[in-house]
Amino acid sequence: MRAVILAAGGGKRLWPYFSRPKPLVSLLGLSLIERNVLALRECGIKEFVIITGCYSGEIQNYLGSGSKFGVNITYLHNPNWELGNGVSAYMFRKGYRQGETFVIIMADHVFELKILKAFVSEAQNIKQDEILLAADRCLKSIHDLAECTKIKAEQNLAVKLGKSLHDFNAVDCGLFICTGAVLEALSKTVSQGRYTFTDAVNVLAEQRKVKLHYVKGAWCDVDDFSGYKKAEKILLKSLVTSKDGFVSRVFNRKVSIQMTKLLARTNITPNQITFLSFLISAASAVFFAVVHPLYGGLLTQFSSILDGVDGEIARLKFLKSNYGALFDSVLDRYADFLIVIGMAYSWYSQTSNPMVLPVCAAVLTGIPMSMLLKEKFHALTGRPFIPEAYDGIFRYLPANRDGRLIIVMLGGIFNLIPAALICLAAITHLQTLVRLYNTRKLMF
Amino acid sequence: MRAVILAAGGGKRLWPYFSRPKPLVSLLGLSLIERNVLALRECGIKEFVIITGCYSGEIQNYLGSGSKFGVNITYLHNPNWELGNGVSAYMFRKGYRQGETFVIIMADHVFELKILKAFVSEAQNIKQDEILLAADRCLKSIHDLAECTKIKAEQNLAVKLGKSLHDFNAVDCGLFICTGAVLEALSKTVSQGRYTFTDAVNVLAEQRKVKLHYVKGAWCDVDDFSGYKKAEKILLKSLVTSKDGFVSRVFNRKVSIQMTKLLARTNITPNQITFLSFLISAASAVFFAVVHPLYGGLLTQFSSILDGVDGEIARLKFLKSNYGALFDSVLDRYADFLIVIGMAYSWYSQTSNPMVLPVCAAVLTGIPMSMLLKEKFHALTGRPFIPEAYDGIFRYLPANRDGRLIIVMLGGIFNLIPAALICLAAITHLQTLVRLYNTRKLMF
Repeated sequence: MRAVILAAGGGKRLWPYFSRPKPLVSLLGLSLIERNVLALRECGIKEFVIITGCYSGEIQNYLGSGSKFGVNITYLHNPNWELGNGVSAYMFRKGYRQGETFVIIMADHVFELKILKAFVSEAQNIKQDEILLAADRCLKSIHDLAECTKIKAEQNLAVKLGKSLHDFNAVDCGLFICTGAVLEALSKTVSQGRYTFTDAVNVLAEQRKVKLHYVKGAWCDVDDFSGYKKAEKILLKSLVTSKDGFVSRVFNRKVSIQMTKLLARTNITPNQITFLSFLISAASAVFFAVVHPLYGGLLTQFSSILDGVDGEIARLKFLKSNYGALFDSVLDRYADFLIVIGMAYSWYSQTSNPMVLPVCAAVLTGIPMSMLLKEKFHALTGRPFIPEAYDGIFRYLPANRDGRLIIVMLGGIFNLIPAALICLAAITHLQTLVRLYNTRKLMF
Repeated sequence: MRAVILAAGGGKRLWPYFSRPKPLVSLLGLSLIERNVLALRECGIKEFVIITGCYSGEIQNYLGSGSKFGVNITYLHNPNWELGNGVSAYMFRKGYRQGETFVIIMADHVFELKILKAFVSEAQNIKQDEILLAADRCLKSIHDLAECTKIKAEQNLAVKLGKSLHDFNAVDCGLFICTGAVLEALSKTVSQGRYTFTDAVNVLAEQRKVKLHYVKGAWCDVDDFSGYKKAEKILLKSLVTSKDGFVSRVFNRKVSIQMTKLLARTNITPNQITFLSFLISAASAVFFAVVHPLYGGLLTQFSSILDGVDGEIARLKFLKSNYGALFDSVLDRYADFLIVIGMAYSWYSQTSNPMVLPVCAAVLTGIPMSMLLKEKFHALTGRPFIPEAYDGIFRYLPANRDGRLIIVMLGGIFNLIPAALICLAAITHLQTLVRLYNTRKLMF
């Protein structure tokens, strides 16, 4: 399936804030149009047709053939872009292949990835005389409702659309799965001098051929500066993953997202951040070893927060890779080991207590077991291990990395190194035993 | 697809050796017929029709409805079993469902599982007027060639079959994928007084309707005691897995297979063996700790060998489970940890050398990395990590469990505990670095 991106408009209302054409305005490290190309690539779309108008040259120069994104981009220029976006969409008749189903998306709309994925997967259910329109019926959360195209919907059918509609129950998200039917409708409306895309959609709505897909998630039309800020907020909020442990969710993630917001604008890669986080852990181990537990503890927590940033940047800028995940896992383990060894060394150098050896050994052996059991479970069963579902009451045990590093931090701040190490040994092994017991029922 | 098992014969030639009907003769912990049921279950077959004759009651009592194997078994009794196996096969006309394709297998033939899997997967390519016959063209390795049914083959077609054929180039393995065509042929031959199954196959061979599937692997017709021993050998040999490390392959596996041969006859489960192997490791850790390194080293190696037996028993007796694999992985890690801690304690108790702490820490952190990286790779990419293919020249590094435990054993026997620990630390971390570097190219 191909996607048509409408990027012909002028985008006047953002001119005071940015020196670039609107589709090329950078939002968290990616231009608006680039983000839509990459997001649709994640949905399996590899061929794009971009309809340009006002900033034809700039956009074409910036995106090129698409090869740097691993996709194919062709361009159609609409010299009459000022008439309306229906004229731009109608340009696609020159590239249309008989019988094809295609996505139409506005260059300046920003969607949570999950919205696009769910929407694109609906394409197969659309007949050749229908179109599918992404609609939002959570009217309260819509940004700048006055500027939106409203929809009067009856169940899953749009019966009328318009900016100034009074009787409406949903809003048009600017995202369509289209068929040749839409080009026929456009041919009719454009020839009658009705130049907006909505005019053509209304023709089909009258024939009850406009199906609605109600989106679950956040999106935004970046029309002005407040839309830009709203889009930024939506994307940052979408970075919180369901895999987060308790400490991550209530604390680390809140800080890491602010760091991601800053770092996204730079060229730093997720793997570089992973390595930086490892170096900070190593530094914290040194601080522990030279008996500066306060700095050791604080640096550990800083590295724990930074450990979330690599994944956030990867998801935000479509830089996710399997190797990145592996690299992160291995370096996290080494970081943990160094911190524990630093703590144990500090304890031993101050007390020469022979208990250091068994306690340190117990922590070092306990730490990798959490990941080891989860990954083995995943590899054997093909499904991820979900602590919330499988650990029962023990899911509150701070034995995952975020929880463990909080214990290290507290041990450092309050100079309670032996207590922190004994605590780490106890909870990591307890978790392993619990999981070994619980998975028995899950895997047989 | 259903399978028909021909189990009507008397099996006279095994009478002097066993007190049970031949299909119920136990071979490495499973009766011959039970093994074929379980092996075909692994190939996805859940419905069986067993043709009984001589030992109808005994077989039916033993296997029952099949529910204990998770399959469905029905029985057809052939009172005229002494006439020949064609009459037995022809009994299936009473259970045949119009248009079905079914497997016919001899109760007393033993196959490597991979042969059955490859053969059964061919069923979809057979037309309704054809049959498929498993044939072996490695004539040298065939047991008791004189007793076999020979095949004159032209490419993938059988043109003539017979026990006393002189001009032949393959042998009938007693394994068929059949269609209604075989019942028609049987109806003809049985009514003419030609009672062997081969008679019916010959009718189809004349019509060039007998396709051949050349097996890759070992099989055996258990007709007499030497066949029984040969089958035992084939099954034991098939337990060596391609995942084995160097030490496993050239040494451990040779011993573990002998242990499996003994233990297969008992009711001991794979998980019990896993736990036993763990206890022996724990005992070896104690011997190291109380400065009896020789016993420690020898027990470690014994536990390493026993660590192969659980998987062998599981594969041999179709007791494989995901939980068993997880349980084994976790207990192996704990066993390794205990052994290393025992060694470190022994070193420290004799010398009070402060280097024990960092060296022990380095080994404890290095040990889980091999598995951790492999499992993460598997979970991320969906394909197993293959050391032989991905580790390059470093595949000879004894950093996998079998190799590591050899180092422990040598350290114990020659009382070189510090050297063994330093060596373990070096190779495990070196392997991790190598893999982190190599997977970069594999996963991007």
